[in-house]
Amino acid sequence: MPVAGFPACFVFFGQSGAAKIPLAMLVVFVSAKLMAELAERLGQPGIVGEILAGVLIGPSVLGWLAPNEFLSALADLGAMFLLFRVGMEVKSSELMKVGGVATLVAFSGVVVPFLMGAAILLLWSAPVNEAVFVGASMVATSVGITAQVLSAKGLLHTISSRIILAAAVIDDVLGLLVLAVVSSLTHGKVDFLQLGLTALAAVSFTVIVAKWGTHAMGRVTPHVDRSLKVAEARFVLAMSLLFALALLAVWTGVAAIVGAFLAGLALGENAGQRERDLAQGVSELLVPFFLAGIGLHVDLSAFANPGTAVLAIVILAAAILSKFIGCGCGALGLGKTEALRVGVGMIPRGEVGMVVAQIGLGFGILSRSSYGVVVFMSVATTVIAPALLNMAYRQLPKTRVPEPAEEVFHLG
Amino acid sequence: MPVAGFPACFVFFGQSGAAKIPLAMLVVFVSAKLMAELAERLGQPGIVGEILAGVLIGPSVLGWLAPNEFLSALADLGAMFLLFRVGMEVKSSELMKVGGVATLVAFSGVVVPFLMGAAILLLWSAPVNEAVFVGASMVATSVGITAQVLSAKGLLHTISSRIILAAAVIDDVLGLLVLAVVSSLTHGKVDFLQLGLTALAAVSFTVIVAKWGTHAMGRVTPHVDRSLKVAEARFVLAMSLLFALALLAVWTGVAAIVGAFLAGLALGENAGQRERDLAQGVSELLVPFFLAGIGLHVDLSAFANPGTAVLAIVILAAAILSKFIGCGCGALGLGKTEALRVGVGMIPRGEVGMVVAQIGLGFGILSRSSYGVVVFMSVATTVIAPALLNMAYRQLPKTRVPEPAEEVFHLG
Repeated sequence: MPVAGFPACFVFFGQSGAAKIPLAMLVVFVSAKLMAELAERLGQPGIVGEILAGVLIGPSVLGWLAPNEFLSALADLGAMFLLFRVGMEVKSSELMKVGGVATLVAFSGVVVPFLMGAAILLLWSAPVNEAVFVGASMVATSVGITAQVLSAKGLLHTISSRIILAAAVIDDVLGLLVLAVVSSLTHGKVDFLQLGLTALAAVSFTVIVAKWGTHAMGRVTPHVDRSLKVAEARFVLAMSLLFALALLAVWTGVAAIVGAFLAGLALGENAGQRERDLAQGVSELLVPFFLAGIGLHVDLSAFANPGTAVLAIVILAAAILSKFIGCGCGALGLGKTEALRVGVGMIPRGEVGMVVAQIGLGFGILSRSSYGVVVFMSVATTVIAPALLNMAYRQLPKTRVPEPAEEVFHLG
Repeated sequence: MPVAGFPACFVFFGQSGAAKIPLAMLVVFVSAKLMAELAERLGQPGIVGEILAGVLIGPSVLGWLAPNEFLSALADLGAMFLLFRVGMEVKSSELMKVGGVATLVAFSGVVVPFLMGAAILLLWSAPVNEAVFVGASMVATSVGITAQVLSAKGLLHTISSRIILAAAVIDDVLGLLVLAVVSSLTHGKVDFLQLGLTALAAVSFTVIVAKWGTHAMGRVTPHVDRSLKVAEARFVLAMSLLFALALLAVWTGVAAIVGAFLAGLALGENAGQRERDLAQGVSELLVPFFLAGIGLHVDLSAFANPGTAVLAIVILAAAILSKFIGCGCGALGLGKTEALRVGVGMIPRGEVGMVVAQIGLGFGILSRSSYGVVVFMSVATTVIAPALLNMAYRQLPKTRVPEPAEEVFHLG
């Protein structure tokens, strides 16, 4: 970072290198928090401000920063800590109870967006492969955004929140399979045995950890207190579990954040206030990098072509409607209010849609303009969802973690 | 990360990329903490285990990881959070009180190691430039290691601890000047005007923030509570100040960690328990990356040559003795016990010596074997210091932050 007027000998100390880290931290963190403050003052969720801060400082507007390896790594860690913290706030038994409805929600929330997205691209006379890939990019929900809004409002224990969380985990596994099928299709034929193995690995990992993780940690935690001499031993255990399950999740095919969520879930009932506070600190620092990181990927220059801009609006509308209808219908058995909440909560696509789009771009299947459209859809659904969630949950009092949770379930 | 037996289609999801972050986090964090546990059980400070973990997983032994951009960034952040947290635990007024002694300690602690190091290399018939650079690399103390040991033992408020902290900050400014002079000398002639400006910028930044930072923050903090709507506003302020001062420090020529220390100092008396806990969480996660990161740089292959190995031992002995004598003599006015503690506390060179050695290597002034010697000296002083500190402070009870601090000063 050359600074006009500073002695030239400063270059000797490699300070452009030394300045890089604090400069990036300062720019991203402070702009995210300033925009969060602005959003809150305008009556919007702070999270929206943090995403827009990324758009603002990113290549499209101010051009201060572009996505780079260091910032992406912090964003990945931020997403993991966000989901870890959310996992700590819910009980796996509560999620298991809503497993049936959540599976239904996840399935119809995958089928409807995929068909709608692919159909629109075909009507737009795009090649079949491209249509199928855009459809696939509209499948997976980015649960981080919804979880953050619900957590900030203290609503993680409502029945609709639990369904959203469980459905988003199942949705991630389904998204993995859709992407595997789509990738195979566009490369020739589908190997069903391999697909079956992929599904088996992902499902077994998720179910085993969700079902027995809490019990296992309940047995390990007391030993940690008694036997370990290292400082903050419970926090050390929590971090080790978080990274281990995130890694296992990636290896079995699901997202690292699903592993982080499962780690939080396994620790939740066994964790004390101290580990929660320490993990919260990391989360408060890193989540803005996840949120601003989403915004950093927006490239508005793709919309210089009016045709692309129209397609972007149409795909955005389809992305919102298809999840709302698909997931909402899956949850209709719980009554209209809860179904509406579930439908809204599943809308944000965030980083997941962008990953699929990047793979499509890498394969040469997505054009640059379709890529821009998917990224716009991913960011826009993420920016719109918190405000819609605010409306959908307006009837509920703004409290932090009501206990016992059961009392809240029948308010809506 | 290819895993034998896993379906080949996994590669489609770019998972080798997705696995990289959790894998690196897991390997470094868990090995650091396992080695810390082992060290504690052997009656050694955990910090030694964490540094040795870096040596163990690094290129010299297991070869699991080599220093890379992501890990160095986390290490830099870890060092900043470590010094930030230490800064929060001390009062700037307490540091100012010992300013005179600390300046004396810092000066003699710079002159003696520089002369000793350069003399040894000249006797070893190294070129003058190389001798001067090795001398310069032995100048700056890495205060992080000592601060971590003293903080873990609850001894940051003793008079020797305050002198060590203040002297280490002054030492950093002196180290900057020594490096500037040495770099200029080896490139031709010294520009005294520029050196003067460098010194002025570094000294004014440090003195202004240390003197008026606490007062300024005392005025800002209450406004933050009242006016900001963003969540955890005080933590947001703390992080913003941390990164801003780290950046300013780099720009004015001192190390980012000095800025981080000053940020902690400015906030210390105004910070509540909540911000402390949140910052502590980040610190608990990232400090192992700083410590293991030091160890990662060790390259034992440099010592295949017996001559180099002997030189390494001689330089190590000189590094220990010269700081012990130089700094200890500077603090003799406080009595032998305190002088001994100060001398021991200033021994670790850690990452600072390595940075100087890297610059020398980049200039083509240091040979690869001298570079290896300096890195060995930096790591070895850092590994030895905690055990020496344990001995030097044995007379004091192991308590956490004794209040009022004054009672402790005359125990030794």
